[in-house]
Amino acid sequence: MNILITGVNGFIGKHITKEISNRPCKIFALIRGGSDKSFIEKERIPFFTFENNINDLIKFIQDNKIDGVIHLASLFIKDHKSEDIQNLISSNILLGSCLLEAAIQSKVKWFINTGTCWQNFESNDYCPANLYAATKQAFEDIAKYYTETSNLIFVTVKLNDTFGPDDTRDKIMNLLSRIAKTKEILRMSPGKQIMEITYIDNIVDFYLRMITLLQSQDAFAFSGRSFSPQGKERLTLKELVNIFEEEIGQKLNIEWGGYPYRKREVMTPWVNSERLPGWEEKISIREGIRKFLKE
Amino acid sequence: MNILITGVNGFIGKHITKEISNRPCKIFALIRGGSDKSFIEKERIPFFTFENNINDLIKFIQDNKIDGVIHLASLFIKDHKSEDIQNLISSNILLGSCLLEAAIQSKVKWFINTGTCWQNFESNDYCPANLYAATKQAFEDIAKYYTETSNLIFVTVKLNDTFGPDDTRDKIMNLLSRIAKTKEILRMSPGKQIMEITYIDNIVDFYLRMITLLQSQDAFAFSGRSFSPQGKERLTLKELVNIFEEEIGQKLNIEWGGYPYRKREVMTPWVNSERLPGWEEKISIREGIRKFLKE
Repeated sequence: MNILITGVNGFIGKHITKEISNRPCKIFALIRGGSDKSFIEKERIPFFTFENNINDLIKFIQDNKIDGVIHLASLFIKDHKSEDIQNLISSNILLGSCLLEAAIQSKVKWFINTGTCWQNFESNDYCPANLYAATKQAFEDIAKYYTETSNLIFVTVKLNDTFGPDDTRDKIMNLLSRIAKTKEILRMSPGKQIMEITYIDNIVDFYLRMITLLQSQDAFAFSGRSFSPQGKERLTLKELVNIFEEEIGQKLNIEWGGYPYRKREVMTPWVNSERLPGWEEKISIREGIRKFLKE
Repeated sequence: MNILITGVNGFIGKHITKEISNRPCKIFALIRGGSDKSFIEKERIPFFTFENNINDLIKFIQDNKIDGVIHLASLFIKDHKSEDIQNLISSNILLGSCLLEAAIQSKVKWFINTGTCWQNFESNDYCPANLYAATKQAFEDIAKYYTETSNLIFVTVKLNDTFGPDDTRDKIMNLLSRIAKTKEILRMSPGKQIMEITYIDNIVDFYLRMITLLQSQDAFAFSGRSFSPQGKERLTLKELVNIFEEEIGQKLNIEWGGYPYRKREVMTPWVNSERLPGWEEKISIREGIRKFLKE
């Protein structure tokens, strides 16, 4: 099986790529001009550099007989500035649209898209928490055209928060690790928001399970649907920090309520997406934190 | 009242601009780099050239105290090619998104978006007839973020087909006029598709009525909704051609069924959008054809 991955340099992309490389699959990467090539060179992954040259992309996909696409590349901006709009649309709508077009021209069987639970702010229906989430929804509407007019099987994985080793993002676990070392005081919101967060291995499992289903005879039944790797625990930010403190055996200098909640803070993450048959969270948050701290 | 219009060089844009210019409103135009300036120069319309310079756009809207935006600019491609995707997204999603961002930064009161009934192919829910329609839906997703996070009143006019004088588009009435003159044989589909088509004056009326409502005290009640200037008649293409032939007193050389229907031909246009209070079609198709033939 030949799989094309985008976002291979990202946190999730690297973990998935390493895991799939251990299996009887061949991985190809789509990168943007200017992307760092150190990971794909180290892992010896054949790659295509996309610079809006769609006909070359079609040729690359055809030449390499790609069976499926895992589309992870994304520009995440929590609170955008006016100048970010062009990049948000280019990264989160245009790239995926070109990839869909190329996939269909090349008879690719399936396409796993990556969305965000922030598309469903305080709501079951579409309501974006930020412009980033709106661009993710916009891309799903583009995809609807392609699924309506082709046999491509298109599914969306709606992610919540993730953590694990080698995460370079400026996220909660890295923040806590840092202040544990520096002993600095960290001002935070009152901390009552529920954190839907999962250890990276659970996410990798989720994508692998999805691939298995999309290679099965029932694959068409999944097309057009969204699934979320929702964990078993529903902890508040404060409870999460508590576990972290227990695991490092140290109280952190956090000033709870030192900041107000952000505008449109997601207090209760969306949990009503479909469950993926045959997947469940294997590593609890506490176990995940232990593994994270070990690295 | 100061109104910013996009797509001022288009068929509908020119007609609306001329009509509004007769009223106590000041019109401003947003054009793209490379746009033809002959119309706006002739009508002496102040304009801003948008080349992704969003901060300049914000300044232009603020300096000119724009009250409302009529967003008509659109790239219509019936059957796209792979190379068209970038332009479709740039014209139908990026431009509008920048305009929304600028409108909100500048406290613009209302924004009339222009969509298409092709967003609802054979369906009440979203189902795009082509990629063009999918980009229109994608833009509405982006707009949802802005309406959720601001007081901007955002409405969408979902257009069906239009006709009238000074239409340079390669559309049915121009086609019929041409073959009436040249006597050439025109091969067409079997012609049983229902044409939802309206004379341009009805459309201009519709936008003017919308502006009146958006300037009223009840304006907020309209935000986030879609309205369609749906006519009273439901004629098939054949019946439409029949009226045209009656009005010119000449039988046209049409070979019905000489072509098959296109893939995803819209056989029954979507009619379930909301009606705009206080608007109804004034000019029938036959009257419209008479006016069209006079010009």
